[in-house]
Amino acid sequence: MGKPTAIVFGVGSERGIGGAVCKRFAREGYHVIVAGRTAAKIQEVAKAIASAGGSAEALPTDVTDEAQVIAAFDRAMNPGEGRDPADVVISNAGNNAIIDFTKLTAAQFEDFWRVGCYSGFLIGREAARRLVPLGRGTVIFTGASGSMRGKPGFAHFAAAKAGLRMISQSMAREYGPKGIHVAHVVVDGGIDGDRLRGAIPAMVERLGEEGLLSVDGIVENYWTLHKQHRSAWTQELDLRPYKENW
Amino acid sequence: MGKPTAIVFGVGSERGIGGAVCKRFAREGYHVIVAGRTAAKIQEVAKAIASAGGSAEALPTDVTDEAQVIAAFDRAMNPGEGRDPADVVISNAGNNAIIDFTKLTAAQFEDFWRVGCYSGFLIGREAARRLVPLGRGTVIFTGASGSMRGKPGFAHFAAAKAGLRMISQSMAREYGPKGIHVAHVVVDGGIDGDRLRGAIPAMVERLGEEGLLSVDGIVENYWTLHKQHRSAWTQELDLRPYKENW
Amino acid sequence: MGKPTAIVFGVGSERGIGGAVCKRFAREGYHVIVAGRTAAKIQEVAKAIASAGGSAEALPTDVTDEAQVIAAFDRAMNPGEGRDPADVVISNAGNNAIIDFTKLTAAQFEDFWRVGCYSGFLIGREAARRLVPLGRGTVIFTGASGSMRGKPGFAHFAAAKAGLRMISQSMAREYGPKGIHVAHVVVDGGIDGDRLRGAIPAMVERLGEEGLLSVDGIVENYWTLHKQHRSAWTQELDLRPYKENW
Amino acid sequence: MGKPTAIVFGVGSERGIGGAVCKRFAREGYHVIVAGRTAAKIQEVAKAIASAGGSAEALPTDVTDEAQVIAAFDRAMNPGEGRDPADVVISNAGNNAIIDFTKLTAAQFEDFWRVGCYSGFLIGREAARRLVPLGRGTVIFTGASGSMRGKPGFAHFAAAKAGLRMISQSMAREYGPKGIHVAHVVVDGGIDGDRLRGAIPAMVERLGEEGLLSVDGIVENYWTLHKQHRSAWTQELDLRPYKENW
Repeated sequence: MGKPTAIVFGVGSERGIGGAVCKRFAREGYHVIVAGRTAAKIQEVAKAIASAGGSAEALPTDVTDEAQVIAAFDRAMNPGEGRDPADVVISNAGNNAIIDFTKLTAAQFEDFWRVGCYSGFLIGREAARRLVPLGRGTVIFTGASGSMRGKPGFAHFAAAKAGLRMISQSMAREYGPKGIHVAHVVVDGGIDGDRLRGAIPAMVERLGEEGLLSVDGIVENYWTLHKQHRSAWTQELDLRPYKENW
Repeated sequence: MGKPTAIVFGVGSERGIGGAVCKRFAREGYHVIVAGRTAAKIQEVAKAIASAGGSAEALPTDVTDEAQVIAAFDRAMNPGEGRDPADVVISNAGNNAIIDFTKLTAAQFEDFWRVGCYSGFLIGREAARRLVPLGRGTVIFTGASGSMRGKPGFAHFAAAKAGLRMISQSMAREYGPKGIHVAHVVVDGGIDGDRLRGAIPAMVERLGEEGLLSVDGIVENYWTLHKQHRSAWTQELDLRPYKENW
Repeated sequence: MGKPTAIVFGVGSERGIGGAVCKRFAREGYHVIVAGRTAAKIQEVAKAIASAGGSAEALPTDVTDEAQVIAAFDRAMNPGEGRDPADVVISNAGNNAIIDFTKLTAAQFEDFWRVGCYSGFLIGREAARRLVPLGRGTVIFTGASGSMRGKPGFAHFAAAKAGLRMISQSMAREYGPKGIHVAHVVVDGGIDGDRLRGAIPAMVERLGEEGLLSVDGIVENYWTLHKQHRSAWTQELDLRPYKENW
Repeated sequence: MGKPTAIVFGVGSERGIGGAVCKRFAREGYHVIVAGRTAAKIQEVAKAIASAGGSAEALPTDVTDEAQVIAAFDRAMNPGEGRDPADVVISNAGNNAIIDFTKLTAAQFEDFWRVGCYSGFLIGREAARRLVPLGRGTVIFTGASGSMRGKPGFAHFAAAKAGLRMISQSMAREYGPKGIHVAHVVVDGGIDGDRLRGAIPAMVERLGEEGLLSVDGIVENYWTLHKQHRSAWTQELDLRPYKENW
């Protein structure tokens, strides 16, 4: 058996969930394909992994582009150098912003869907096509509070994320019995990181550090989900900072 | 006060939910704007209402086209002949088909979203823009089993319908306190009608007539939702044929 | 066919849900059996119905006492004077109070369960025994926010109400196909009435009248649930005052 | 710092969840208090742990008896021999049987509640009383399919388990911010073990070994829940055998 391979879609900054998942799996001996839109950012992640003695490659990928997602899987399933085809697929793309519903443009609504839901379909379908014949693999989707509930200012986000959740659930029911572990992680709260500080600074202010999820705390669960014995697989779990008042 | 007005989006054949909702509100004295893609079908609905002594007009509308939805609301809020602006908006567009997930094309996935979710956004946003200033109105979205659960063969459908549900929930939380009743009807089962017989005949066969929802049974609930006193509004209810084994 | 009969369990003051349900069904021509613990209160309800030209009888019943529930059904299924056996059964018993979890006594926890859950079992089982042979009937359970969610100060209440919901759901799945409509009404908010003003006055203060559910608004839904065509039955609906921020 | 201590309530046979949780925590260096009704069984578990070089004590406890639960906590918080007070509390009591709803006796319904819900209240309240002053600790409740859904033949079970879930959720919301991790594990399927083979043999037959949850697979998650960083705590996760068709 060769070196195991993982592919992580939706990697932005080194300090986001995507980057941290890459590092977590690299630490376990995985060759990690770091897929994200911005070449500079994913190269930074790959470089950090290499510096720590791990194995990674940056693969610039627009997850809303079917051909690019397919190409990324082509690489992930044939990662070269005696590596095994990927058995871990992480779908982590997403963005967020509070937008007044009456002011939401059609283009904004569609854009949130493309990034938050359609990308998950492209990744999920491709994962199914590639993993089912192998009879093994783990596919994890990053969800959010909006996956479960709609709220003022978040209709566009919730509509995308709830859709993604259904992709995950449909896949789990179909491909679980075929040996593919499909899981959905509901990150229910603000994530301590650059993105939230940029997007919704008032939320960071209000909650304080202990009211936010740490990226490392989150991604530990991606690893334990992957390691679950198939006689007891989790389809969905929530994650919440202990201080949050929910 | 003038004659009340309702606009129903997503009207197909006379015997579907859309057509039946039109007739139900017409029977209560509403002027009904019958909005649907196929001119011949909506004209048939409008004609049937007129034959029964009601008032209706057919308004050919592609609910996935922003400009057409806006134009439909322009008409609905200025329905002429001493009628009141619409205070009832029904978002009923949708389609369904079982498609193997690995064979689902990107175009199919997007098409289901456009018809099942994006249309609801366009209608919901426009309804919010028009009704909030008036401080009154009812907006009802037609949901389905897929709004709540993903299943093999239905990922595309569930992804769209769950997204629509979040639009409904987000709107309800924001606009309820402003006097707009936003409700989501979960039609949890097969509907006895032409569409199902065409799309999934095996399901009709298997369930039998008593295992299917009748259109008239369904639309009665649209009327009672509209009539609920605002001190006790329903955001979501499920509908299921008594014989179904769920 | 004789006069139809309904039995309502958990009737307290004339202005609570129980009392209002009795009046609502009486107004439709039902003979109503008014079952509650306090004779004076249920007599008041029965008297009010009679004064309005309706038909009712007070039946003192402790809903946590199996023998008394059975006896009440004996009466309800043989209501005399040419009346039909009851085809409407309402299970409405319940109480509420905010209690700090660490201070909750075992007796309190059990008491909330007896009133809020065990009573529903006794009523539900008896309804199943009596209605299934007839192949028709409506059984409605009154739920609450706590049926769906646990919160600080409400563990005892939520534990009882969530249990009741499962009784309702289990019954619906089993007895729906046998012609019995089993529904669960989630009263999600404070009810404008004597009980809340006594139990949690701060909530009444905070929400204001428009943030509370009106009893008449609530019970209208019991009637429409009963009248639903069996081709489209609702198992669960929520009710919420329009002003509530949920 | 001394040796850490865990107390596990609801331990039956060595091969059930309770026994396996005991062994799992013992393996990590915990002194485990093995609490269960049947002395012979819990002694067997404690002996097995000792044989493997671990530390455990059997503490005969009827989890439906308030005084016994309190006494068990008295021991768990003062475990002697330089050990730390317990910071892990597992509430695992439960039983199951398919019973026709119309034949369910009041005593049976109550018994299921006492074992499946009331025991969880006693344990949860005592855990809150003891752990909140320490500002740390993990409390895990074992849930089931019935925690989420009611079905024919399972009303009594679901009513108890859904109640237990609400205790867990209420506690999590209140005590999470105080440093106590309260989690609910939804064991959604049949567990491969003596109990199921005895109670519902037809289910074992129908599902086959790969359609059943393995006890070891389940309890691994109790350990990872306990080890989660408090910046990303899970309140609820489901567990399901990969082969199950849900």
